[in-house]
Amino acid sequence: MTYADRWLLPDGVEEILPAEAEAIEQLRRRLVDLYRTWGYDLVIPPLLEYTDSLLTGLGRDVDLLTFKVTDQLSGRTLGIRADITPQTARMDAHSFTLPGANRLCYAGHVVHAKPKNPLATRTPIQAGVEFFGEPGTRADIEVVSLLLESLALAGLPRQHIDLGHVGIYRALADAADLSQTQEDIFFDLLQRKAVTEIRAWVADNLNGSPLADVFLALPGLAGDRSVLDRARDCFAQCPPAVLAAVDQLEQVADVVAERYPAAELYFDLGEVRGYHYLTGLVFAAFAPGYGNPIASGGRYDHIGEVFGRARPATGFAVDISAISKLGLIERQAPRGIWAADQAMPEQWQAVQALRAKGERVVFGAEPTPPEEAGCDRQLVLKDGHYQVIPLA
Amino acid sequence: MTYADRWLLPDGVEEILPAEAEAIEQLRRRLVDLYRTWGYDLVIPPLLEYTDSLLTGLGRDVDLLTFKVTDQLSGRTLGIRADITPQTARMDAHSFTLPGANRLCYAGHVVHAKPKNPLATRTPIQAGVEFFGEPGTRADIEVVSLLLESLALAGLPRQHIDLGHVGIYRALADAADLSQTQEDIFFDLLQRKAVTEIRAWVADNLNGSPLADVFLALPGLAGDRSVLDRARDCFAQCPPAVLAAVDQLEQVADVVAERYPAAELYFDLGEVRGYHYLTGLVFAAFAPGYGNPIASGGRYDHIGEVFGRARPATGFAVDISAISKLGLIERQAPRGIWAADQAMPEQWQAVQALRAKGERVVFGAEPTPPEEAGCDRQLVLKDGHYQVIPLA
Repeated sequence: MTYADRWLLPDGVEEILPAEAEAIEQLRRRLVDLYRTWGYDLVIPPLLEYTDSLLTGLGRDVDLLTFKVTDQLSGRTLGIRADITPQTARMDAHSFTLPGANRLCYAGHVVHAKPKNPLATRTPIQAGVEFFGEPGTRADIEVVSLLLESLALAGLPRQHIDLGHVGIYRALADAADLSQTQEDIFFDLLQRKAVTEIRAWVADNLNGSPLADVFLALPGLAGDRSVLDRARDCFAQCPPAVLAAVDQLEQVADVVAERYPAAELYFDLGEVRGYHYLTGLVFAAFAPGYGNPIASGGRYDHIGEVFGRARPATGFAVDISAISKLGLIERQAPRGIWAADQAMPEQWQAVQALRAKGERVVFGAEPTPPEEAGCDRQLVLKDGHYQVIPLA
Repeated sequence: MTYADRWLLPDGVEEILPAEAEAIEQLRRRLVDLYRTWGYDLVIPPLLEYTDSLLTGLGRDVDLLTFKVTDQLSGRTLGIRADITPQTARMDAHSFTLPGANRLCYAGHVVHAKPKNPLATRTPIQAGVEFFGEPGTRADIEVVSLLLESLALAGLPRQHIDLGHVGIYRALADAADLSQTQEDIFFDLLQRKAVTEIRAWVADNLNGSPLADVFLALPGLAGDRSVLDRARDCFAQCPPAVLAAVDQLEQVADVVAERYPAAELYFDLGEVRGYHYLTGLVFAAFAPGYGNPIASGGRYDHIGEVFGRARPATGFAVDISAISKLGLIERQAPRGIWAADQAMPEQWQAVQALRAKGERVVFGAEPTPPEEAGCDRQLVLKDGHYQVIPLA
């Protein structure tokens, strides 16, 4: 192995250098502080735990993203977390005993065995919230509002959110009496919005069914608020659960639009992201120039079931790494004061006094030019006391 | 697998609940801010990388602590970091091209495949600094000073540091012409301060050597500042490198004692912690009631060699998890304002205004009693406008 090889990081594994690290640190702090003011208490789940609890209820997608190791102490399989949500669900079920609402937030690294898409990092930093114990749309409204606040805080000039509801396809698949295989195939087509294939599939599988037209219309039920009215016409003969889902979407959109008039809400009733574990409202935020969601979330009422406590739950995660790459957060070059070490106690006291005020002071005797140490000023002895003056 | 099993975390793997998580978050922020004011720029190394770079130069101790996985993209072995220091050395060698001093800091999780000791967590949170490019004691003085600042900031009522120098045993082993096996065996005895065994070993291996008395004295050269004078007598006939090491210790201790008169400096010239990769001054901080160091560091000038850039380097890591367990950081129960959702825009504006001021406002309609949501006040409509009053 040569020197150059040792320098290489694995594909999709990133190290973050000072200017970006500082921007990420500031965004991370501001998000955690925001969530605190909304009553979400910080938890720090472990980086790894038994796959039995880590992968529960999330299905194969997350399983494939998760690195596994054998625990030398127990002989059981551990997973490096690829998602923090199931960890908070376990904590809600086990470590909190309150019967009522429980609001938690977190910030930290997750690790993906494979990148989620060709350009994605395998070690994203996420911050997120989870709201347990509240089944009504009030909780959905709260987390969507909080996501909009997060986007504004991250400096996104436009806050764009896609809203969907997995209950729609779930109820339609039930009503059409689809087999598991049929449901999975149409799910895949719908996810890809493969209109031509959808047309062929409906002709083959729902020929003569009164729901055929509804299945055909699903991928096209996307756009602004007017989509909800179109959907009501289209779903007129569908089971009540389908129309109830549309009502829920409308309730959420009404309140959110009133609170955040500048937010851009886009509806996609054929959205099936997270279909295998989400149960209600789903949403994702997008930014220009980034093809994948910079944040996503939804309702997942059954996730705590395997932990013995099936609680209503909704929440989202913000991809801090992706937001950082948008370049919206100002990257400030470090500024500071250069103090060439003179081994004088008075100089040391002056340096410490400046640091106590929050100044960045590089106390050096090394030959580095002060500019390269990120300094724009210097501490010098002048007229008998130490003063900060611009660099010569 | 039963419900109860799914709740269990692996031995030594911890989840951190709100009161402690908040204390850890605050300490983490304050340490990073402290390091910034000393000119240490934040970096975020990845959670995992090739073992070829991660384990380089650190020897078998860290290797055994490191979980390995196979990278599906490259087929090579990745390690989950058990120590952040080698990552910063790689970054210094590869990602920074400045010839002069380079000060870096970090804060994050590391993962240990086995606990370092029976009670230790396997997922500690660390913060630390690394100072590259400065070979002189000035850098050692700076990092020891910064460690004392870190201990004070963490709330330790007494700042106690053990100082040693691995150059002493290294030079003595050279001078006595020990074989690798002899060196390793005596290293083990010295580390355990196994005085009886040391006496037997010296009789067997250094019989008649002028260095026999020095080897016998090594484990006892520990205590306050007077140890340095005793050491000079004891080392009088030893190679110059041994006395140079004592001089370095004294230089560091002089400046540090002047700057921090309250600090408790303890010297241990038989200290060989990190002997396999440290090269000079070594130090560790201890706290009453915790048997292991809560922080440790030292000089490791050769670590960058394998990355093509052998740079002088010294630094330390603080074990935030261990400090948190000392209970020195005040754990504040969350305080906040309860606002029962009345679906009134004026109420929402009042809630948002309070949040913007940093208040924690739980906006609920759920049946949870406000006290259980950590609230001590409430927002009510009174005399035509929204006011914060104590909970009834």
